[in-house]
Amino acid sequence: MNDKVERWGLFEEAFRVSFNGNPFTDVNLKAVFKHEKMAVETDGFYDGNDTYKIRFMPEMTGEWTYVTSSNLPSLDGKIGRFECTQPSSDNHGYVKVKDQFHFEYADGTSHYSFGTTCYAWIHQPMELQAKTLETLKLSPFNKIRMCVFPKHYDYNLNEPLLYPFEKTPEGIFDFTRPDTGFFRHLEKRILELQELGIECDLILFHPYDRWGFSDMGFERDCSYLKYTISRLAHYRNIWWSLANEYDLFIDWQTNVPKKTEDDWDRYFHIIQRYDPYQHLRSIHNCRAFYDYGKPWVTHCSIQRQDTFRTSENTDVWRNLYKKPVVIDECAYEGNINHGWGNITGEEMTRRFWEGVVRGGYMGHGETYVHPNDILWWSHGGVLHGTSPDRIAFLRGILKNAPGPLTPVTDLEKDARHYWDVTCGVVGQEYYLFYFGFYQPSFRHFILPENKKYKLEIIDTWNMTIHEVPGIFSGRFNIALPSRQYIAVRITQVRK
Amino acid sequence: MNDKVERWGLFEEAFRVSFNGNPFTDVNLKAVFKHEKMAVETDGFYDGNDTYKIRFMPEMTGEWTYVTSSNLPSLDGKIGRFECTQPSSDNHGYVKVKDQFHFEYADGTSHYSFGTTCYAWIHQPMELQAKTLETLKLSPFNKIRMCVFPKHYDYNLNEPLLYPFEKTPEGIFDFTRPDTGFFRHLEKRILELQELGIECDLILFHPYDRWGFSDMGFERDCSYLKYTISRLAHYRNIWWSLANEYDLFIDWQTNVPKKTEDDWDRYFHIIQRYDPYQHLRSIHNCRAFYDYGKPWVTHCSIQRQDTFRTSENTDVWRNLYKKPVVIDECAYEGNINHGWGNITGEEMTRRFWEGVVRGGYMGHGETYVHPNDILWWSHGGVLHGTSPDRIAFLRGILKNAPGPLTPVTDLEKDARHYWDVTCGVVGQEYYLFYFGFYQPSFRHFILPENKKYKLEIIDTWNMTIHEVPGIFSGRFNIALPSRQYIAVRITQVRK
Repeated sequence: MNDKVERWGLFEEAFRVSFNGNPFTDVNLKAVFKHEKMAVETDGFYDGNDTYKIRFMPEMTGEWTYVTSSNLPSLDGKIGRFECTQPSSDNHGYVKVKDQFHFEYADGTSHYSFGTTCYAWIHQPMELQAKTLETLKLSPFNKIRMCVFPKHYDYNLNEPLLYPFEKTPEGIFDFTRPDTGFFRHLEKRILELQELGIECDLILFHPYDRWGFSDMGFERDCSYLKYTISRLAHYRNIWWSLANEYDLFIDWQTNVPKKTEDDWDRYFHIIQRYDPYQHLRSIHNCRAFYDYGKPWVTHCSIQRQDTFRTSENTDVWRNLYKKPVVIDECAYEGNINHGWGNITGEEMTRRFWEGVVRGGYMGHGETYVHPNDILWWSHGGVLHGTSPDRIAFLRGILKNAPGPLTPVTDLEKDARHYWDVTCGVVGQEYYLFYFGFYQPSFRHFILPENKKYKLEIIDTWNMTIHEVPGIFSGRFNIALPSRQYIAVRITQVRK
Repeated sequence: MNDKVERWGLFEEAFRVSFNGNPFTDVNLKAVFKHEKMAVETDGFYDGNDTYKIRFMPEMTGEWTYVTSSNLPSLDGKIGRFECTQPSSDNHGYVKVKDQFHFEYADGTSHYSFGTTCYAWIHQPMELQAKTLETLKLSPFNKIRMCVFPKHYDYNLNEPLLYPFEKTPEGIFDFTRPDTGFFRHLEKRILELQELGIECDLILFHPYDRWGFSDMGFERDCSYLKYTISRLAHYRNIWWSLANEYDLFIDWQTNVPKKTEDDWDRYFHIIQRYDPYQHLRSIHNCRAFYDYGKPWVTHCSIQRQDTFRTSENTDVWRNLYKKPVVIDECAYEGNINHGWGNITGEEMTRRFWEGVVRGGYMGHGETYVHPNDILWWSHGGVLHGTSPDRIAFLRGILKNAPGPLTPVTDLEKDARHYWDVTCGVVGQEYYLFYFGFYQPSFRHFILPENKKYKLEIIDTWNMTIHEVPGIFSGRFNIALPSRQYIAVRITQVRK
């Protein structure tokens, strides 16, 4: 027990009770946490070795008390208290939607999402996992997409270190008995990510499977979700990705989906039911989108559908779903055989800029062939590509903007003049133009007449920023370097 | 008079008659040309200096006779004959549609269209026109988009050498009196192009105008069309482009179109009526497409609508219109301010490959800024870009294919395997794969088991072709160079 927990930190209490039966399915344990101004009900979970736990992420400072309830008398009516203290300086709370299209931490700090993807990194050898954390520490990424279950797919044929379920004496997985050692390992990784300031976008189901985890049946899916959500929701850096490529859970013999859209809806409801904090929730497609407009989806989590237009659709999807657009998978930088995994660093960087300037959020991944099949996209390890440095540069640009970007296509009157350049704005105080693969030698700009601006030419590939001398207003031409990947940043000056 | 004319050559006869009135509008002159097996009616025209002419392009060898009819008795009932001889070796006749999606010359030779654009080259100083012809001679282009009327637009502010109409004594254009000197100049250029093996895709109307030619009114438009078609249809290298950016003939004050869609339909009917050979006919958009499905349109003549997907839509448009797809304007290589004129040579080359491999035909243009505003796209002159050499290389590839390409997306069963690579095929004997901006280090191919193939790796940018040793069938992997712009050519071998 901890008698002091910082705001958005993790309170945990354990109770040792012996029980004859399946403690995962037969024992109910809840707790109500009370504060002067609020009460929150949470679900406890069994953590092996006759130990039951309750956890809680307090959202308000001050004194909290709790009382448990259970169908096991020895777990019922347990009480306790703790003091919730001010958060430490790097703790901004959990991430939530801000202003319809964007994200912020619970303390109001903006969160500009720059994700990467290492699907099965927690299933790799320990040294490789350590290397992944080292790499992440120096990377520009503040979100990682990663799976609970191990992955079976091209380049992913090894057995995982740990399995998420216990095996029966006959050696088959017992889907009613989560492996608590596995979950403790997962939690350790979530916490290490948290210390690096990285959100864990946890993928609860995925179809690339040879162990049966993708096809446990509705009831076992539900009990797995209840256990996982009840156990992990208390980590402030959790996002729920209900599934990766939800549309590929198919019996390929008959073409019948193994999980229907109704099933996915119900699974979302289970997350809503067992997550007291309502962390961000989405689901990721292969081909057809799940309807991101459904009220339980907090944001889009998109794999590009068109091999040519990817992040260029960001503004279309913003307007369609009226939610934040996260394009987690716009293809990966690399050189493998598959078209989703062999774009250049230049193209990955271009897609990031196209999406970010349109007011969306992009996800990175890397798939360079490797003699030992260690590909960042699934295994972690080290990064080999050229895009991460440029993504760091872009993240710096965005961090220095006065606020989240709105695509100029949303501003009827300006859209026509800017049909051939991507432009994101913050009111009339900030304009970020991105020319992508175009290489103009000059450009005509139209700014408000009654305001004054400074103008900088940004080489997004060479990562340079050059201020053009002068103060600008109204209509004017600016010479540009006749190269690809140029941006222009125009910022209001007040003097 | 010429008593021998080669097949698809130009027969012409002149008659001098004086007439009090407007010889352009008040005199009708027709001729019926007869051959053992056919008769063709043509319209004559007034060529100034009391001279009326009849012209004819014979499509069959052997003896032809003609007889005229006219409302002027002195032009009526004129008779004559000539012998149509075998065509010279470079004369393959006019170009027509072949196998629904492609083109061929009248003698059955395939025509793979590789166009360029010099809108107003015949309106530039004579030395520049000569330079343009010199450049074209060494270029890979076998079609040129060019306007009858001079052009008024950015970079195009000079006066033309010649105007297409006479002026009244008051100095205003008389739209009832074509300037025959201008038309003779135009014909000289058409013939020079013909000698270079270049099709003249003649743009009959365009909206970029300060002289009034874009807004002459319905009746004058019709008489201009009748005159121009009757006069020029006899050149075998003529294609009719009814308009450039037909959707921009708009009164910008009221937003009312100056020429309606019904007008364009009627203008097409006039071309049909006065062109005895039914040369290729199309019309070019700025934004919305004219309905290329209309029966009088022989092929699509497209400006890309989406700034990111351009020639990648070729197969979509093939299936939509069921006609040859010519993307005349996928943007131009250059560095001007406008987004339609500042793509790189790499991107232009990529767009060509994407369109051609999908069984379409692409058009080039070039818009590099120039100290004297001489931009190839409108003025001609010399080429500065890097794409023409690569277009020549691609033209060579296509010339060596066993036939026109069909996109693999039309072949249901293969399309899924090739979602991430562009592929055009000729039956099962030839496959051309294009990887575009992807950079795979290897690729899995699936060929028929019962046939044998050779395989070449083509670097479309560095213009190299490397045969991979061996004979290939069925399923296999091939190492690729992890670079962009790679193609793979697989050709059946019989031994």
